[in-house]
Amino acid sequence: MNRIAQCVPNISEGRNLDIIEYIVEPLKNQQGFQLISYEPDQDYHRTVITLIGDPHFMILPLIEFFRRAIEKIDMRMHKGEHPRMGAVDVVPFIPISNITMEECIECAKDLAIHVSYMHQIPVYLYAKAATQDNRIQLPDIRKGEFEGMSTKITLPEWKPDYGQPMIHPTFGVVAIGARMPLVAYNIDLNTTDEKVASFIAKAIRQSSGGFQYIQAGPATLSEMNCVQVTMNILDYKKNPIYRIFETVVMEAKRYQVSITGSEVIGLIPQEALMDSVKYYMQSSQQTYDKQMSLETLTELSIKHLKLRGFSKHKIIEANV
Amino acid sequence: MNRIAQCVPNISEGRNLDIIEYIVEPLKNQQGFQLISYEPDQDYHRTVITLIGDPHFMILPLIEFFRRAIEKIDMRMHKGEHPRMGAVDVVPFIPISNITMEECIECAKDLAIHVSYMHQIPVYLYAKAATQDNRIQLPDIRKGEFEGMSTKITLPEWKPDYGQPMIHPTFGVVAIGARMPLVAYNIDLNTTDEKVASFIAKAIRQSSGGFQYIQAGPATLSEMNCVQVTMNILDYKKNPIYRIFETVVMEAKRYQVSITGSEVIGLIPQEALMDSVKYYMQSSQQTYDKQMSLETLTELSIKHLKLRGFSKHKIIEANV
Repeated sequence: MNRIAQCVPNISEGRNLDIIEYIVEPLKNQQGFQLISYEPDQDYHRTVITLIGDPHFMILPLIEFFRRAIEKIDMRMHKGEHPRMGAVDVVPFIPISNITMEECIECAKDLAIHVSYMHQIPVYLYAKAATQDNRIQLPDIRKGEFEGMSTKITLPEWKPDYGQPMIHPTFGVVAIGARMPLVAYNIDLNTTDEKVASFIAKAIRQSSGGFQYIQAGPATLSEMNCVQVTMNILDYKKNPIYRIFETVVMEAKRYQVSITGSEVIGLIPQEALMDSVKYYMQSSQQTYDKQMSLETLTELSIKHLKLRGFSKHKIIEANV
Repeated sequence: MNRIAQCVPNISEGRNLDIIEYIVEPLKNQQGFQLISYEPDQDYHRTVITLIGDPHFMILPLIEFFRRAIEKIDMRMHKGEHPRMGAVDVVPFIPISNITMEECIECAKDLAIHVSYMHQIPVYLYAKAATQDNRIQLPDIRKGEFEGMSTKITLPEWKPDYGQPMIHPTFGVVAIGARMPLVAYNIDLNTTDEKVASFIAKAIRQSSGGFQYIQAGPATLSEMNCVQVTMNILDYKKNPIYRIFETVVMEAKRYQVSITGSEVIGLIPQEALMDSVKYYMQSSQQTYDKQMSLETLTELSIKHLKLRGFSKHKIIEANV
C-alpha cells in the first residue's frame, strides 16, 4: 500500500513567476512523490505548494528548494496581505493514508535539522511537532512577523528549536511541523471595506469568537475589488464548511453585504466537501448519493459553496 | 452608577421549606443587594438562591448564611439527583455592570477567607478565581462528591485554597469563585423526534461540535408535544444568542424542521439581549437605539428570538 502524506510549503513570493518556477523546480519529476500544484497569489505575495507522496522522499529535494528560496527571496523587500516571517514561511507534513502522525513529525525534524545546519535557518517546530505550548499555533509563532522576529527570537521562550537565536538576515525564520489536514478556505464579500471582513473574522474565529478550530482574518483582493474572510478550518469534521459558509452569510447580512464566491487554497479532502454537499441536498430535499463521482461532487460543491477556480484535481483523492 | 454583580449560592436542601427559610433569612432585606429568588428543587434536593447588587455588601450576610447551613444541613444524610460536595455547595460571583471580574474574584476570596477561618470550612476557589488548572471546572472539583471528599482532600493536588486539608464532618467542602454570567437558553423544534434535537445539540456544542462555550443536549417537552435543544451559553459575548439561534435554524433545515419558539431559564443580562436585537435591527436596516428601554428590548427580543414566557423581569437589570 502506498504511504501517502501531503506536504504544503508556503513561500513568500507570489508575483515573479520566473522566481517561483526556479524555486519549485527541484520538486518536479522526483521519485516517490508528486508536485501537485503551486498557486501564486499576487495580493498575498505568497505561493502555496502542494506535494503528495511518501514524505521521506521529499526531504532532499526540499533542502535544495530552501537553498533556492534563500538565493531569490529577500524578506526585507517583501510586502503582502498575508502575515509571514520567512522566505519559506511554513512547511507542514500531513498524514493522509498508511502513514502515522509520528512519521510526519520525524520528517519535520529531519528537514528542520538539515535546513538549520546546511543553510543557517532558525526553525520552530509547530503544531503536532511543537516542543512547547506557545509553538502549537502557527499565528503565535508568526506574531510580530519578519520585522519583529529579530527581537522576538532573542527571548528565552522564543529560542528556536534548531539553529541559532538570530534570524537569517534575508530569509527570516521558518516553522516546520506536522498536523492533521486542514482546509484553507476564503470567502469573498461584495464590499471593499476590510473592516467588514475583520468583524466577521472576529465573530467566527476561535481566538475571539464563537467557533472552535477556526483561524480567520480579513484580506483585501485588489484584483477583484473586494475583501475576503480568509481562514483555516483546523477540524472540518467538527466545523463543516457549509456551517462556516452559512454563518458568514448570516453575519454579513448585518452589514448589508453578501457572499459572491469562495475558494479552496491547496487541496481538500473529499470528505470535507461531501459533508457540505450532503447538508445542501438534505435541506432542499434532494437525494444524497454517498457514492457520487468526484466529478459530481465537484459540480455540486461549486454550485452550493460558490467555489471559484475549483476543479476535481483540488480534491486530494483525485491525485492518488 | 450602581455596581452590580449577581451571586448564586446553591445549598444542599430542597425539601424542608422551614430549613430553607431559616438559612436564607440573613439574605433578606439587606442594604446594597436584593434576594431575587430562591428555587427549591425536590428531586435535586437543592435550592438555587439568586442575589443581585453590590457584592461587597453580600459578604457579611453570606457568612451568617453559611453558619446557618452548617447548623441545619448534615451531608451524611443527604441524597439527591444533583451532584454535591457541601451543605453550601457552590457560590459564584458574576460581574453584571460597572464591576470587573477582578472585583468579583476579590469578593470570592474575601468570603472564602472568612468561612474557612470562622467556620472551619475548606474552600476551593474555582472558575476565574481558580489558582490551579484542575480547579477551573466545577465538575472536576466536585468529582467523588461529599462521600469521596474526605480522601480526595488529602491529596497534594486537592489541598484546599483555604482551610485545612480535611472536610468539615457534616458540611463537607465548598467551591467559591467568580465567572461570567451564563445564559440558560432552550430552543423549541416543531418535531417530537428527540434524535433531531440530539443531532443539532451535537453539532453546536463544544464537546462534539463547532461552537465554543456551549453546553447543549436534547430534551422532550411532553406538555408541549415537541422537543428542544437545551443549552448553557457560557460566554454570550463570544457566542451571541442570535448566532446560536440562526445556526439552529440552519441545522434544523436539513431535517425539514423549523423553530417554533425559545425560552430563557432564570435571568439574562441586558447586554446579551441587546447584542441579538442589534443584529436583527441591522440586518433589516432598521435603526438600532442603544438607549432603548427595557420594555422595548423585551418586545424586540420576543419578536426576533420567538421568546415565550418572557417578560421584562427576566432581565437582570430590571431587578436592580
